[in-house]
Amino acid sequence: MRARLSIVLVGARNPSNIGAAARAMQDFGFDDLRVVNEYAPPFEAAQLQGGHPANVVDGRKAAVGAAQVLANARRFDRLEEAIADCTLVAGTTAIGGRGLTQPVVPLSDAAPQLTEALAGRVALLFGSEKTGLTNEQLSRCQLLLTIPMFAAEGARHLSMNLGQAVAVCLYELVRAGFEGARELPVTREVQVTAEARERLTQLLLEAMASTGYARRFPANAREHVVRQLAMQLGGKEDEAATWMGFLRQVQRSAKKDAPG
Amino acid sequence: MRARLSIVLVGARNPSNIGAAARAMQDFGFDDLRVVNEYAPPFEAAQLQGGHPANVVDGRKAAVGAAQVLANARRFDRLEEAIADCTLVAGTTAIGGRGLTQPVVPLSDAAPQLTEALAGRVALLFGSEKTGLTNEQLSRCQLLLTIPMFAAEGARHLSMNLGQAVAVCLYELVRAGFEGARELPVTREVQVTAEARERLTQLLLEAMASTGYARRFPANAREHVVRQLAMQLGGKEDEAATWMGFLRQVQRSAKKDAPG
Repeated sequence: MRARLSIVLVGARNPSNIGAAARAMQDFGFDDLRVVNEYAPPFEAAQLQGGHPANVVDGRKAAVGAAQVLANARRFDRLEEAIADCTLVAGTTAIGGRGLTQPVVPLSDAAPQLTEALAGRVALLFGSEKTGLTNEQLSRCQLLLTIPMFAAEGARHLSMNLGQAVAVCLYELVRAGFEGARELPVTREVQVTAEARERLTQLLLEAMASTGYARRFPANAREHVVRQLAMQLGGKEDEAATWMGFLRQVQRSAKKDAPG
Repeated sequence: MRARLSIVLVGARNPSNIGAAARAMQDFGFDDLRVVNEYAPPFEAAQLQGGHPANVVDGRKAAVGAAQVLANARRFDRLEEAIADCTLVAGTTAIGGRGLTQPVVPLSDAAPQLTEALAGRVALLFGSEKTGLTNEQLSRCQLLLTIPMFAAEGARHLSMNLGQAVAVCLYELVRAGFEGARELPVTREVQVTAEARERLTQLLLEAMASTGYARRFPANAREHVVRQLAMQLGGKEDEAATWMGFLRQVQRSAKKDAPG
């Protein structure tokens, strides 16, 4: 069950942060680390940092542990490739003033949903040290969660150290009885992968364009807005297939009418 | 209330660990840091580490935050001086094979007791990076708690990064409804009424008919099936409005094409 949770670091650049995240994963027994970055992340440097005796109680053992996670870590060029096989994509955010349209739930409230979703594969996304997740990245999430922090007087926004944020999230999952999740009845409905969701998003965008809706209401037809709408179309594979079929038919129907 | 919790680092030697602990305290709104050490701990070095831009989302602000905690930090020669004014002393341990005679409770079970004890002053002790708390130090605690971790095959004992351990403990206290915990902004989304949902259902049925989808896949276009599909279209009022607009446009686009 733990093997079905993927920690996805989007744009993390600092080796010591990647190492600290790997260390936290090792501590709580998780092993699927995915890094989305433009260039090869320095996993070896991360290993040195994560296992640095100064950072840990037992340097040698911790280095071994973080090394296993880092040896299995995979790099992706783009977020959508990293989450393609995931049936639930959850993003972490510090709730800035960015006018999110998606609801953001406290970590403790999100934990049961995350645990249930581990019948499939779950991606838990963490943004870059500087900016967090962008609106475009957040639009790929079905669930946004936040770690409740203390807003100091005058602080404009909140942020956490990456390794600490990963540790707190994994702690919450383990705390919520992660092990017992094994006994959950297996859901027989096949859940939709992020890849299939993206196809649905593109199809909806095309249908909005070909019917003329995008021309009339361009604000509603922006890609990240449409991606959120497509999120709603069938969590189950057969439902998603029905929506795909309908949207293709909309396309056909509109194309017959298209000029030229 | 938060001011009555003291984080006591016993024998922590590494500036980056002291800085990381201070950072976690800042994130969760705690400010009383006490360090027990034989020599003056390098608070300035800790500040540089804790506020290093590579470690944080917003370097400048985080440095300011960690700086406040570190500026107030006090050094003590001996543990008993550091905890002299405390009414409850709680120690953290990874449960080694050291034959503890005191019961060790999981962090989540200890949280209510810690919170209640904040009518007085509570000390939460963390041991050195190398050895954790010694038996002598543990003997000064009324309460021993542990963060449940995953024991890898063959691991002789477990340990966590100090900053991550502090973050997880403080998170648990805040999670348990620590007084003054920052309130999440309430999402004021207007939910869709059953009446609006039914309009959406009818519109989707019509769009399926006019585009020819219902003729090709009649099983998918049965009213109760379509009603279930329409349930997915926007729990929020503005989302539902967008779907209505899109489906009306599909209708228009299809009608222009309709025979007659």
